[in-house]
Amino acid sequence: MSVTSPVRADLSLLLAAITQRLGAAHVLTDPADMAPYLREERGLYQGRTAAVIRPGTTEEVAFVVAACAEAGVPIVPQGGNTGLVGGQTPFGELLLSLTRLDRIRNVDPVDMTMTVEAGVILDTVHHAAEDAGCLFPLHIASQGSCRIGGNLSTNAGGTAVLRYGNARELVLGLEVVLADGRVWNGLKRLRKNNAGYDLKQLFLGTEGTLGIITAAVLKLFPQPAQRSTAFLAVPGPGAALALLKRLRGEAGDALTTFELMAAFGVETVLKHMPGTVRPLAERYDWYVLAEFSAPTRAFDLAALMEEGLGEAMEAGEVLDAVIAASEAQADALWRLREDMSEAQKHEGGSIKHDVSVPVSRVPEFLERALAAVTAALPGLRPCPFGHVGDGNIHFNLSQPEGMEKAAFIDMWETFNRIVHDIVTEMDGSIAAEHGIGRLKAHELVHYGDPVALDLMRRLKQALDPAGLLNPGKVIEE
Amino acid sequence: MSVTSPVRADLSLLLAAITQRLGAAHVLTDPADMAPYLREERGLYQGRTAAVIRPGTTEEVAFVVAACAEAGVPIVPQGGNTGLVGGQTPFGELLLSLTRLDRIRNVDPVDMTMTVEAGVILDTVHHAAEDAGCLFPLHIASQGSCRIGGNLSTNAGGTAVLRYGNARELVLGLEVVLADGRVWNGLKRLRKNNAGYDLKQLFLGTEGTLGIITAAVLKLFPQPAQRSTAFLAVPGPGAALALLKRLRGEAGDALTTFELMAAFGVETVLKHMPGTVRPLAERYDWYVLAEFSAPTRAFDLAALMEEGLGEAMEAGEVLDAVIAASEAQADALWRLREDMSEAQKHEGGSIKHDVSVPVSRVPEFLERALAAVTAALPGLRPCPFGHVGDGNIHFNLSQPEGMEKAAFIDMWETFNRIVHDIVTEMDGSIAAEHGIGRLKAHELVHYGDPVALDLMRRLKQALDPAGLLNPGKVIEE
Repeated sequence: MSVTSPVRADLSLLLAAITQRLGAAHVLTDPADMAPYLREERGLYQGRTAAVIRPGTTEEVAFVVAACAEAGVPIVPQGGNTGLVGGQTPFGELLLSLTRLDRIRNVDPVDMTMTVEAGVILDTVHHAAEDAGCLFPLHIASQGSCRIGGNLSTNAGGTAVLRYGNARELVLGLEVVLADGRVWNGLKRLRKNNAGYDLKQLFLGTEGTLGIITAAVLKLFPQPAQRSTAFLAVPGPGAALALLKRLRGEAGDALTTFELMAAFGVETVLKHMPGTVRPLAERYDWYVLAEFSAPTRAFDLAALMEEGLGEAMEAGEVLDAVIAASEAQADALWRLREDMSEAQKHEGGSIKHDVSVPVSRVPEFLERALAAVTAALPGLRPCPFGHVGDGNIHFNLSQPEGMEKAAFIDMWETFNRIVHDIVTEMDGSIAAEHGIGRLKAHELVHYGDPVALDLMRRLKQALDPAGLLNPGKVIEE
Repeated sequence: MSVTSPVRADLSLLLAAITQRLGAAHVLTDPADMAPYLREERGLYQGRTAAVIRPGTTEEVAFVVAACAEAGVPIVPQGGNTGLVGGQTPFGELLLSLTRLDRIRNVDPVDMTMTVEAGVILDTVHHAAEDAGCLFPLHIASQGSCRIGGNLSTNAGGTAVLRYGNARELVLGLEVVLADGRVWNGLKRLRKNNAGYDLKQLFLGTEGTLGIITAAVLKLFPQPAQRSTAFLAVPGPGAALALLKRLRGEAGDALTTFELMAAFGVETVLKHMPGTVRPLAERYDWYVLAEFSAPTRAFDLAALMEEGLGEAMEAGEVLDAVIAASEAQADALWRLREDMSEAQKHEGGSIKHDVSVPVSRVPEFLERALAAVTAALPGLRPCPFGHVGDGNIHFNLSQPEGMEKAAFIDMWETFNRIVHDIVTEMDGSIAAEHGIGRLKAHELVHYGDPVALDLMRRLKQALDPAGLLNPGKVIEE
């Protein structure tokens, strides 16, 4: 006599009900069909689930969540599956994919807003904004495949935060499916709204643990009419900080990018990425990618850049510089920054830290952290780069040449402790723009203020009392 | 035999304990001493309390809140007592004044941050930023007496939101005393921090109902190096919107102010405010105050303004214009906008609506709302003005000449219903920048989405389960 456990039976009934509503094509249970949703880009995790559920509308998301709530079955929401902290990966929960919610509902170039569903690919948002003569300024490496719902759920950052802010600041309204399956329609297109608590803040950056974002009203900006892009060699992070201050004083808000890179990263891109070109004659230890852009032609950004860099060279803040003379040259300079994570894969295992400190303390952080990690493992090749104007450094470490990759990856905790201890001592953050997900949930408990952790747990309890939304992510169980 | 009620006895014990900790000078119970804290600027409310408690440090605030929590006694926190919706007024609760927490803890011109206590007057924040060569861009009419804690608790807006955002967007970190008296120290100076939920969002704009802000890390900006201020006559709100788009295209982010005013308001200022001067030879129905400012002298803002306005006049968007030739002239033009609320007091009773709609719908809103209110009361003198680039109109109504003020004020509900119905139909907000407080708590229930109201109540329950922090404000009991 065979016994079916009640849970199994419930799950079968639940999936049958969902299949009836969504159609069999949108409830994947075949391992081959599910594989792309369960793969983690860097191989850190292998997801497991009984089914990948692909609703096509907000109403269908609400139906699925309500049915799961009734059955007591937990869910992991997923956008483009590009997250770097395992937040989108199920470990036994059902997977709810938002990719079919891919409609742009409205673009308004007078209000400067766009209403999009969660599954729209970030680059599609960019193009729709451009088509309306506008700019949506969120730019991150995965923009060709990540989805806006994931960007908002993780409060994504990127290369334009300096001027435009993080994803949180680019949102006017949200539509959210709550843990019990109700829909909160907060799709306001308002620039000012103090009518009660700002509920959208509960769902921005909370990684799907308090609700599932199904649509959003995004802020658009005037499209740049000109840009001036420069690639610079600088003596070090301290000089970079002085240069940042100088260029901001020169151009004000027209300084829209300021990215610091160590030599190893740039050399790795030049070595592995086809078509990249060395921008300066000599090799240096530190580089900066700086860009001015503005929605007006009333003043000449290239002339401003030349003047600023001329003064910076006299002051010793810049050792050598190239200013792009064409859009193609600008794009080529950008590749040296944008291809960095991809290129690093060719150098074996890498252990990554996405950290931030107060802007003024970036040089001190780099000095201390570089000394500490290279002392811990001879031959280690640090690859720090990032958004120095935001105090956000991707403190990535490539394994020593010849070391076994697995042995290096086993040192993850060791390096976490070294780097995160320094960051915490400097009143920084162990998770600047990639979030906590699964990867750092334990670190958050390790370093977190007990009062803050208690507040987070109270929020989770208030909004998802049964703990069915992305359990174990952000807040450890 | 006299009987003392248990509540009274508890209150006496509580006040004795607080007096012992703070000193008698900081626990006011004399009606004359308490009067300034209980007065509501426009006479809408008369506050009542057993005591005004004035702690001097975060630790003292925590002590008071913990003691009140233990005794089950509710508290109303208050900053500069300038709120326009009664959020700072006690109706029997104890009053906790934050005015003695008035230290500037730190100003950092490299990080571009300032750490201030809740009781610092907004203008003091402005001056401290200027002294460090920086700008803190929150500008509102009450800046000489309002306090930063109140500005943050109400997510204040003002005349620079167009470029710099609301108060919420000007904060990097908070220190908060929770309902049970614990202190959450979230005073991070980080531009990027995704380490768990963004807890500061729980306290920004929630009017002291979820916690009491005691200190904050504010974002600073580069100080403007030049500005160009213009006062313009425009054919109407539609032309103003076209002009907004044109000037933004011309100057980009250098367009930092764009305020629309109806004739009645400007004439009222000219009539009642000493030293004000008519800016244009003729009288018009609608005016705009526009300002360009930028932290650089690399391009000429006055020339940009002249060029933009020349084109706008050709396009019929501007009828007449004056550009300030000096700082003194610029200040004089600003007074025509800034003195408007004050001047309106001389014209008898006024009923105010602080509303917003999508920017593109401002002309439609004004047309519909003006027709509706003037039809409802012959002789009514509407005084709409506001931040058209934010979609935020102060739709103020001055009483008909000769009408009794009290009779007019009795019509508050009638006009609320007319204006707020139109706003709601247009997917706007009945509370754009002044908040809900007590004045609009009932309106929020009337117009609020039940799902949103339920989420707000869950938050209140999670963070202040005993309902002791500013009860009856924002969320009606």
